[in-house]
Amino acid sequence: MSTTAPAPATKGLEGVIAGETEICNVEQSALIYRGYEIADLAANATFEEVAFLLLEGHKPSPEELKRFTAELVDARDIPEEAKSFLTHSANLVKNHSGVPMDLLRTAVSICGHLDPDCQDNSADANLRKAKRILAQVPTIIGHMQNNIDGRDFVAHDPDLSHAGNLLWMMTGEKPTAEAEKVMDVSLILYAEHDYNASTFTSRVIAGTLADMHGAMTGAIAALKGPLHGGANEAAMDMLSEIRNDIGPDNDTGKITDWMHKAFEEKRKLMGFGHRVYKSGDHRAPILHGLGRKAAEARGPEFVRLFELGETVQNIMETDKKIYPNVDFPCGMTYFTMGIPVPQYTPIFVASRVSGWAAHIMEQHANNRLIRPRAAYSGPETRKWNG
Amino acid sequence: MSTTAPAPATKGLEGVIAGETEICNVEQSALIYRGYEIADLAANATFEEVAFLLLEGHKPSPEELKRFTAELVDARDIPEEAKSFLTHSANLVKNHSGVPMDLLRTAVSICGHLDPDCQDNSADANLRKAKRILAQVPTIIGHMQNNIDGRDFVAHDPDLSHAGNLLWMMTGEKPTAEAEKVMDVSLILYAEHDYNASTFTSRVIAGTLADMHGAMTGAIAALKGPLHGGANEAAMDMLSEIRNDIGPDNDTGKITDWMHKAFEEKRKLMGFGHRVYKSGDHRAPILHGLGRKAAEARGPEFVRLFELGETVQNIMETDKKIYPNVDFPCGMTYFTMGIPVPQYTPIFVASRVSGWAAHIMEQHANNRLIRPRAAYSGPETRKWNG
Repeated sequence: MSTTAPAPATKGLEGVIAGETEICNVEQSALIYRGYEIADLAANATFEEVAFLLLEGHKPSPEELKRFTAELVDARDIPEEAKSFLTHSANLVKNHSGVPMDLLRTAVSICGHLDPDCQDNSADANLRKAKRILAQVPTIIGHMQNNIDGRDFVAHDPDLSHAGNLLWMMTGEKPTAEAEKVMDVSLILYAEHDYNASTFTSRVIAGTLADMHGAMTGAIAALKGPLHGGANEAAMDMLSEIRNDIGPDNDTGKITDWMHKAFEEKRKLMGFGHRVYKSGDHRAPILHGLGRKAAEARGPEFVRLFELGETVQNIMETDKKIYPNVDFPCGMTYFTMGIPVPQYTPIFVASRVSGWAAHIMEQHANNRLIRPRAAYSGPETRKWNG
Repeated sequence: MSTTAPAPATKGLEGVIAGETEICNVEQSALIYRGYEIADLAANATFEEVAFLLLEGHKPSPEELKRFTAELVDARDIPEEAKSFLTHSANLVKNHSGVPMDLLRTAVSICGHLDPDCQDNSADANLRKAKRILAQVPTIIGHMQNNIDGRDFVAHDPDLSHAGNLLWMMTGEKPTAEAEKVMDVSLILYAEHDYNASTFTSRVIAGTLADMHGAMTGAIAALKGPLHGGANEAAMDMLSEIRNDIGPDNDTGKITDWMHKAFEEKRKLMGFGHRVYKSGDHRAPILHGLGRKAAEARGPEFVRLFELGETVQNIMETDKKIYPNVDFPCGMTYFTMGIPVPQYTPIFVASRVSGWAAHIMEQHANNRLIRPRAAYSGPETRKWNG
C-alpha cells in the first residue's frame, strides 16, 4: 500500500457515504422516497404511482399516471428469444440446477441486446428502457413459472395492475382484490432503498458508462444473495425447517430450544438484522400486518405460520436484540399467497427495477467512475525466476 | 442525511480503501500480482502461469502447471444452450443492435445455470467454476465471431495455449508464434488490477453471497463501459476517426489541429489517463513495444498507425500532461493483429476472468456485505395527499 494512501474504510463500506442521491433517504426512523415516507406511500399510493415517482421524479398527475400505466401495459410482451429461452430452461429449475433468479438474470440480459435503445445511454433512452424492463419482468417471471408448472403461457391482462398482473401471469388465476393489494404494498415497500448492495452494483456498472440492461443484469445477480434479496426465500425456508423439526403445534418451548441451538451453532438466521436499521426495519410491521390479515382470511394453517414467526421474532428480540427486516414478514406473506418460494426474490426484482433504474439514470446524469482502492496484504515483492 | 453520518467520501470513491486484498498491489510505480511485478511476469511468465498464480495463490510447479493447463483444455467446450444462443444472436452484432460484450454477458450467464456447481459457493466449487469460465470465454468469443463472419464452428486446438487458441478459434487461422506471444503478453497485462470497477462490481455481488457466475456476469457488464474495458475499442475508434479526418499521411500539423479541436470541444479522449496512475501506466510501454514490433513485421500501413498513435500521445503529454493507459497501445496492437474492434473488450474478459475469480473467492472466504450509504440531496419530507 502506498504511504500516501488513506486509512482503510470500514469493512463492507459500513457507514461510508459513497455518493449523493435525490431518490431515497434512509434514516433510523424513516424510509423516504423523494420526500414521501414509506408508511404514507404504503397507505395512500399504488405501485404504479411509486414507480412513476421514482423514475420521473414527482408524484404523477392523473393524466401522467394514465399515460404511464398505459405505457407499462403496452410494454409487457417480451422478445421471442427471451420467451424461447425460458421455455427451454424450465427443466433447470425443476431439477434444481438453476434457480429462478439465475434465469431472470439471463432473460433480462437477453432483453438487453434486443432492446431498440440498447446502446443509447441518453436520459430519454434510459427512461424508455426503464419502463420496458419494469413492464417485462412480471412477464418473464410468469412465463418461467408457467413452464415450471407445465401450464400454457398466460397472456398478460391489460386491465390488471402491475401487482395484479404479476399474480395472474405467475399463477394463471385472477387474484382477489385483497391479494392484489397485499402484493401492491409489498412492491411499494421493496421499490427503493438507497445504496443497498444491488443498487450500488448497478451504479458501479453504470459508472463505467455501460448500459442500463447491463447494470440491471448485475443488480439481479447481487439481489440473489441470501445476505440481500435472497433473504425473503431464506427466511421462509428457515420457518419451514423449524416447523418440520418441531411439528405443527407451535410449542414455545420447542421453538425456543430450536433457536437456542441455532444461536449455539452461530447459525445466521435470515430475515433478521439490517446494515442500516439497528432498531428495527419499519417496513416489516407494515407487511406483517397485511400478511397476517391475509393469513386470517386464508385459514388456520397460515395463521399458525404467522404465530410461529411471531414467536421466533420475540426470541430474537429478547435474546439477541435483533429485529426482523422486511424479508421476514415477506416470506410468510408470499407463502400465504401461494407463491412458490423460489419466486420471492424475482418478485423483489419486479419492484426494485424501479429503484435501480432511477439510480442508473442519476449516475449517468452526473457521472464519475466508481473505482476505489484496496489495501494490499499479500506477499512481499519477489522475482519470478528468483 | 442523518446527523450522525460521516462526511461523504470522495466522488467515485477516489482514493477510498474499500477493503484488503492479497491478490494485487497497485502503486504509482508498479503493478504487482501476488508479489511479482508486471514487467517481470510479462517477460518471464505465460498467461497460464499467471492465471494459476492468481487463482491458486502461488507460482505453479511444472507438475501443477501441466495439470492446470490440461484442466483448462478439458473445460473449453461450452454447453449446447450457450452455443445455440450465440448461433442465433450473430445477426444482432451484424445489424449493430447488440455488441459482442452484451452477447458475452448473456453467454456467461447461461453457462452459469448449466454449471454443475452453480449454487455451491465453497472454495473448491468456486475454483472449479473459475477454471471452467476461464476456459470457456475464448470458445464463446470464437463461436460468436465465427457466426458473425459466416465461418463454420472452429473447434478448439488442445495443443494451443490459452492465447493461441483464442486467436485460432476467433479467426480460423493458426496464429504465428509472434502473434501468440503478443496476445499472451496482453492477457498477462490485463489479468488483474485490484479494485477496478468491474472487479469491485464482482466483489459487491459476491458480498451478498451470490454465486460466481452472477458476479462474473455483472463484472462483464461493467467492463463494457468506455470508461473501463471498453476504452481499448474506443481508443482504436478514435484513431480511425483521426485517420479518416486527416488522411493517411500522418501530417503532424493536421493531427495537432484535430487534437486541439477535441480539447476545445472538451471531448473525452479514450485510452488516456487513469484513476490510479497519474504519471503513466507502466503496462502501456510494454504493450506498445510489442505491438509496434508486430506492426513492423506486418507492413507500413500498421507502422503508420503506430506513428499516428505516437504523435497523439506526444500531444496529450505535452499539452495536457495526460499519459496513455494500457488500452491505448492495446487498440493499435489488436488492430495490427487483424482482430475485429468489437472483440477487443471481450478479449480483455478472456484475461480478467482470472482476476475476477480470485477476488470473488477472496470475498467469499472472508465475507462482509458491501453496503455503503448515500447522502440525501432530494426534496424535504412531504405528504402524498397533502
